[in-house]
Amino acid sequence: MTDERPASPGLTCYRCGRTATFPARKRCECGEPLWFVTDDAATEFAWPESGTGVWRYADLLPVGPHAAERPDAYGRAGVGAAAGATPLVRAPTLDADAGCRLWLKDESENPTGSFKDRGSAVGAAWAAEAGREWIGTVSYGNMAISVAANAAGIGGPGGGDGPDALVLVPDDISGERLAAIAQYDPEVLRVAGDYGRLYYETLDADAPVEFVNSDTPLRVAGQKTTALEICEAFASASEALDLAGRAPDAIVLPVSSGGHASATWKALRELRTAGLLADEDLPQLYFVQAAACDPIAEAYREGDDEVSSTEQTGSTVAYSIANSDPPSGTRALTAARQTGGAVLSVPDDEILEAKADLARNAGFCVEPASATTLAGVRRLSEAGELAESDEVVAVLTGTGFRELDAAGAKPEAVELADLPGRLGDLVG
Amino acid sequence: MTDERPASPGLTCYRCGRTATFPARKRCECGEPLWFVTDDAATEFAWPESGTGVWRYADLLPVGPHAAERPDAYGRAGVGAAAGATPLVRAPTLDADAGCRLWLKDESENPTGSFKDRGSAVGAAWAAEAGREWIGTVSYGNMAISVAANAAGIGGPGGGDGPDALVLVPDDISGERLAAIAQYDPEVLRVAGDYGRLYYETLDADAPVEFVNSDTPLRVAGQKTTALEICEAFASASEALDLAGRAPDAIVLPVSSGGHASATWKALRELRTAGLLADEDLPQLYFVQAAACDPIAEAYREGDDEVSSTEQTGSTVAYSIANSDPPSGTRALTAARQTGGAVLSVPDDEILEAKADLARNAGFCVEPASATTLAGVRRLSEAGELAESDEVVAVLTGTGFRELDAAGAKPEAVELADLPGRLGDLVG
Repeated sequence: MTDERPASPGLTCYRCGRTATFPARKRCECGEPLWFVTDDAATEFAWPESGTGVWRYADLLPVGPHAAERPDAYGRAGVGAAAGATPLVRAPTLDADAGCRLWLKDESENPTGSFKDRGSAVGAAWAAEAGREWIGTVSYGNMAISVAANAAGIGGPGGGDGPDALVLVPDDISGERLAAIAQYDPEVLRVAGDYGRLYYETLDADAPVEFVNSDTPLRVAGQKTTALEICEAFASASEALDLAGRAPDAIVLPVSSGGHASATWKALRELRTAGLLADEDLPQLYFVQAAACDPIAEAYREGDDEVSSTEQTGSTVAYSIANSDPPSGTRALTAARQTGGAVLSVPDDEILEAKADLARNAGFCVEPASATTLAGVRRLSEAGELAESDEVVAVLTGTGFRELDAAGAKPEAVELADLPGRLGDLVG
Repeated sequence: MTDERPASPGLTCYRCGRTATFPARKRCECGEPLWFVTDDAATEFAWPESGTGVWRYADLLPVGPHAAERPDAYGRAGVGAAAGATPLVRAPTLDADAGCRLWLKDESENPTGSFKDRGSAVGAAWAAEAGREWIGTVSYGNMAISVAANAAGIGGPGGGDGPDALVLVPDDISGERLAAIAQYDPEVLRVAGDYGRLYYETLDADAPVEFVNSDTPLRVAGQKTTALEICEAFASASEALDLAGRAPDAIVLPVSSGGHASATWKALRELRTAGLLADEDLPQLYFVQAAACDPIAEAYREGDDEVSSTEQTGSTVAYSIANSDPPSGTRALTAARQTGGAVLSVPDDEILEAKADLARNAGFCVEPASATTLAGVRRLSEAGELAESDEVVAVLTGTGFRELDAAGAKPEAVELADLPGRLGDLVG
């Protein structure tokens, strides 16, 4: 391996095999999204001996110089160096409820509280290396916060300037959401018109801003590291850990654009190429949507080859994954089918129950979108798709601390003088 | 080392050397707080070869069985296993501003968004092992959230039940704060009367609830791991990392009760006992308060031997560290003096400026209390206490995402059709 990546790394289409170069293209002529070619790097890949966060897997990322011995590279310092390396923990208190041996990958323990930091860190580092003045995103949620933070904090050789962030938000964005983004001082534009069209418009090759949208090649590259960490944790687990095998039986993710789902699949493919994951150990990929907006699950149910855009049939508490026209929907569908998994959807009442159970029975505060995983696991176990002995990883994609419901009931009041007696009653 | 800790681990007073046993006592006859005796364990301690989070340092914690090979122990699964292991990153984009080589330890990347999870994880695991029915805390902020989460998620052999959480909050707690705590379904009591008195009342040996308050021995034990991680990261850093030595020159922490400050000092003492930190490499400890409530800084300025309780002279944005009667204040003062550091305070305008700069120039969203560190570093550099070449670690103790100001100005609006032109203007 060389110390420098080519200036125009190669892209390929998972479906038709056509190739292209980055950053000129992001999507294939066939209509499907492109991702980076990593065959050579994956062939030589071994579990790293050093490095933390997303840069632990620098050999598989399209950002050079990629050697762990180059700590002065963009992204190796600052907030981008704090992305990833999230905990993967067993959750035995939920096993009976989940119907399997449940593991939780807590992506809320990223700098801005969601898995988006992985892709943003890689995107910001690439843009800084390439000398791009701007990186952008079309989002008013976790991704917007993450891109703004990673552009603000990109550290490089000598602390040099990295790119600025441009965030395109809907015209009617709320003050709360805007505050979370604006604190990092990005350029924010409120776009009047069809916000849904922006995804495609911003991928125009002539755009002066490098948009790191939900399933673009740079973001998918960064988001691969969720699954790389999961698989490395299993592979390197102590003999004493009661693991059934050297990889989880299933990985369960919320799915929206299909970017994280695609990235997870790509990570598994690379580990197979590296010889680190045998075909028979390949985890099944299960993706979960909210029932009110489930175009990928619908295509799975119907046996379709492609995901079609749908009308959202109502609001959902899991609004952050309500994507009626997912740009990597078909790729996610393919990933689920080819790994022996599935795409399913769950209604809001089950999402809210799962969210509450993750807090009161496991101690994790997640956004509703993340709770679709536990709701989905329950359905899969009930349907016999998952077994009690299966090692199942649910990826909790984002924090719930940004949207707490303050309307709860007031708890019991007690006078200070009466407290000792009241404490005695507790153990009664 | 044995596989089981004694049922009543030993405590000692840092000041007078008296001993006692846990959990019967938490404070010394001399009035000062007690901490666990760890001399034997520290003598034998070496940097661990495995383990993550706070349990990586299990050999120095008062929770047994403490061998890393016992993954079925309480705390080794669930939310307690996700505490700690937070990123320590260089922040070159802030160096010029900070006047030193700045590192950030991002404690917001804990399960509930603050460093409190370290002590809560250890406290919940101890209580579960000891068969206690209840653990409690006196807090309506980060500590309350953390204790409730860790009690909810305590995992043990076979997923057995751990203790329940009791949270004592002020009578007039806001709905927002209550929601963050109540989601984990703890027992919450609103206490009418002098909330400040509760700290001492709940340490009564006869209390049927094990209170893991801000500076109790269990919490200090868990909170040692912040500094253990910092020192291990420096000690194990790649040769290529541009480190001046094998330990940071200074560690800068917000200080409130003095619990975290004391824990940091204890960690350094243990590493010295272990032979992993030479006397000449001992980091200086700097603790920062908000000027409106700074009893420890006042004692430092006045050259007093003890910290006296003060009147708070007004409100402060760093309300979470506004403790006018810090139970470990004198211990923190001693730690700063004995390590050659200092205790200082900073006014609200400097705290708010530091908070904004951490977001817009480094990409970290912290609560105001955490921003006192950068504000303090600036003052120390200006005063010549810190030098440009010093490696200085600022501990960002908690997330700012729970208290964003939604009152900002609306950004520029643009029609979708005009967007391409507007993007062109950006790079123009």
